[in-house]
Amino acid sequence: MISGQVCLRRGETLAAGCCWIYDNEIDWADDTCEDGGLVEVLDSRMRYQGTGFFNRRSKITVRLVSRERGETIDRAFWERRIRAAWENRQALGFSNACRVIFGEPDGLPGLTVDKFGDCLSFQIVSLGMERMRDDILAILAEVFRPQCIYERDDLAVREKEGMEQRKGCVYGAVPPELIIREHDALMAVDIENGQKTGHFLDQQENRGHLRPYSAGRTVLDLCCHTGGFSIHAALYGAARVQAVDVSETALAMVRGNAARNGVADRVETVCANVFDLVRQDCEEGRQFGLVICDPPAFAKSRSALDGAYRGYRELNRRCMQLTEPGGFLVTCSCSQFMTQPLFEQMLTEAAKGAGRQVRLLERLLQSRDHPATLGEEHSMYLKGCILQVL
Amino acid sequence: MISGQVCLRRGETLAAGCCWIYDNEIDWADDTCEDGGLVEVLDSRMRYQGTGFFNRRSKITVRLVSRERGETIDRAFWERRIRAAWENRQALGFSNACRVIFGEPDGLPGLTVDKFGDCLSFQIVSLGMERMRDDILAILAEVFRPQCIYERDDLAVREKEGMEQRKGCVYGAVPPELIIREHDALMAVDIENGQKTGHFLDQQENRGHLRPYSAGRTVLDLCCHTGGFSIHAALYGAARVQAVDVSETALAMVRGNAARNGVADRVETVCANVFDLVRQDCEEGRQFGLVICDPPAFAKSRSALDGAYRGYRELNRRCMQLTEPGGFLVTCSCSQFMTQPLFEQMLTEAAKGAGRQVRLLERLLQSRDHPATLGEEHSMYLKGCILQVL
Repeated sequence: MISGQVCLRRGETLAAGCCWIYDNEIDWADDTCEDGGLVEVLDSRMRYQGTGFFNRRSKITVRLVSRERGETIDRAFWERRIRAAWENRQALGFSNACRVIFGEPDGLPGLTVDKFGDCLSFQIVSLGMERMRDDILAILAEVFRPQCIYERDDLAVREKEGMEQRKGCVYGAVPPELIIREHDALMAVDIENGQKTGHFLDQQENRGHLRPYSAGRTVLDLCCHTGGFSIHAALYGAARVQAVDVSETALAMVRGNAARNGVADRVETVCANVFDLVRQDCEEGRQFGLVICDPPAFAKSRSALDGAYRGYRELNRRCMQLTEPGGFLVTCSCSQFMTQPLFEQMLTEAAKGAGRQVRLLERLLQSRDHPATLGEEHSMYLKGCILQVL
Repeated sequence: MISGQVCLRRGETLAAGCCWIYDNEIDWADDTCEDGGLVEVLDSRMRYQGTGFFNRRSKITVRLVSRERGETIDRAFWERRIRAAWENRQALGFSNACRVIFGEPDGLPGLTVDKFGDCLSFQIVSLGMERMRDDILAILAEVFRPQCIYERDDLAVREKEGMEQRKGCVYGAVPPELIIREHDALMAVDIENGQKTGHFLDQQENRGHLRPYSAGRTVLDLCCHTGGFSIHAALYGAARVQAVDVSETALAMVRGNAARNGVADRVETVCANVFDLVRQDCEEGRQFGLVICDPPAFAKSRSALDGAYRGYRELNRRCMQLTEPGGFLVTCSCSQFMTQPLFEQMLTEAAKGAGRQVRLLERLLQSRDHPATLGEEHSMYLKGCILQVL
């Protein structure tokens, strides 16, 4: 079962919540340590630290699975973890659609499972978890009795761990139309070709936060994807919504979702690059009662942060200019390198640039089914603010 | 009307949101500048920056009132400001009870007005506003047509500005029992002798956040004051609540509020120092499904921050130990010097000390009727986290 031992460099230990060991933290590894197998981790004084998946090909050489020496890591072990993760989501009030498994925080390193109504969509990014794939799928089928399980392993990052990309239905059959319920909205999910696992569940709870800021307002929803924020704003009483995205495919889904929720007459779609659009809207003096800005991650690495920071600042400055006096701006960043303090510093500079005084009404996080571990910046990747722009 | 001019030191300017000018930022002031009067503020190149209340006796020498040269600052001016503040609260959904005026962010420097049902409670901490007192009271009476207006100027800080302390009903009559509605709870407010203006409205919205974390749980509410969190937890289905405070007067109000809301059988009051209590509870191995920790500000000044930080960490470490595995901790700090990043750093250390892994579920702020200005740390004085302690 255990293929070998790995020893940490002097001074390296594992903090309570930590579950990744990078290659540069390791002093030596037994030759027997098998890529994708389980290994024991020792500190430099040969004290047991934990058991984890090993992979020489990955910068994350060990992904911790257990901290209990000798714990049997078998199908029953994985089933306990999966059931615990699902019970945690249910205790937080999730049922119809949520991220059931979020990898490391759920003790299931490299595994993501999203539940969309009666369908599941999953991704595996660690070689160790890939080896458990058959067990995991059998457990998911047993626990959720889903209509289908769809694999979305069309991820470049898999190749770095020595796995091929893959995609397809691995259990049951994909329904012709897959609709989930988010708060009071019905949203179509493209489980086969949508971005990531098919839908951005990490903003699900934040979409519900639009309720007090929508009634009677004109809304600009930038990078709207399939219209999660747009549809909610309309359902919460917005006078009209302009949903902007660069993808025509996404906008076609927005229109479908608008019709599905009976708000097609108040939701208009615009295919545009948001930077170009906000510049033009500013030049033409347009303003909205509620602006939503949820762009993709500008900073995909720490080295890209400087440029990304300027990009966020420019975009948010424009967004503030586009907000009516007294109107609201819901602005987010899903880049882990853009921490909450940095994000608010950027917004403060944007406000100065826009010459507007800005009130902080709410701090947003990713939905609670994407658990963030306190003290681990990378786990708190999505953050946002609801602002009132005076 | 304008008693003189004040000139800023070279290099000093007023940022968009800024409204305080400290004595050390001032180069010179006309001899005619009158304490409590209005002055014009110029930068070192004699360019107009704004108009504000002057007071030599205060470290905050000028409190800005307007940025428009020559704007008439009369009763109509103050009435516009007061009406705008009240409209802002209503637009955010407040009606029965809220802070109607929060001083500087509402353009009413040094004035606080809380609305408790049909009664108003106010405080004045700037000499300039003190001079406007009669106008302000007349406007409040006209705009709100209240049952009473109560002055809670029993504040030591007034003496620093050269005003005496004062307290009493200045309009109408105080009702024998004053009850407000917070979410689904009815809460008694002691407008005459309660802390501050009679009730901590700044936690009003956060009390509503307990809903998903209360059902069936045992609850420990530390520094419960009149029981805002305790009563809400009980109404949201807590199995039983232990409400702890050092003040017997506060606990008597908790018992009254519990009876008023039909939850007296599930709310128990404990008179104790919270530090002693949590240590003893830890020693005895007691645990709760939901712990609430809302202590008074430990850091009343920047110099007191180090000791305060250790105090918060010790208290929160105990709170984590007192939380059942998978249970929730709602923890707050109302000290402006304890910023959000510092607060989370403290909690990360507390988690390490407690040997518990902790998930960040929500970031909390003061209620939106206490506007926080982005970029002004001191205005974001209340912050908190809802944590799941594994």
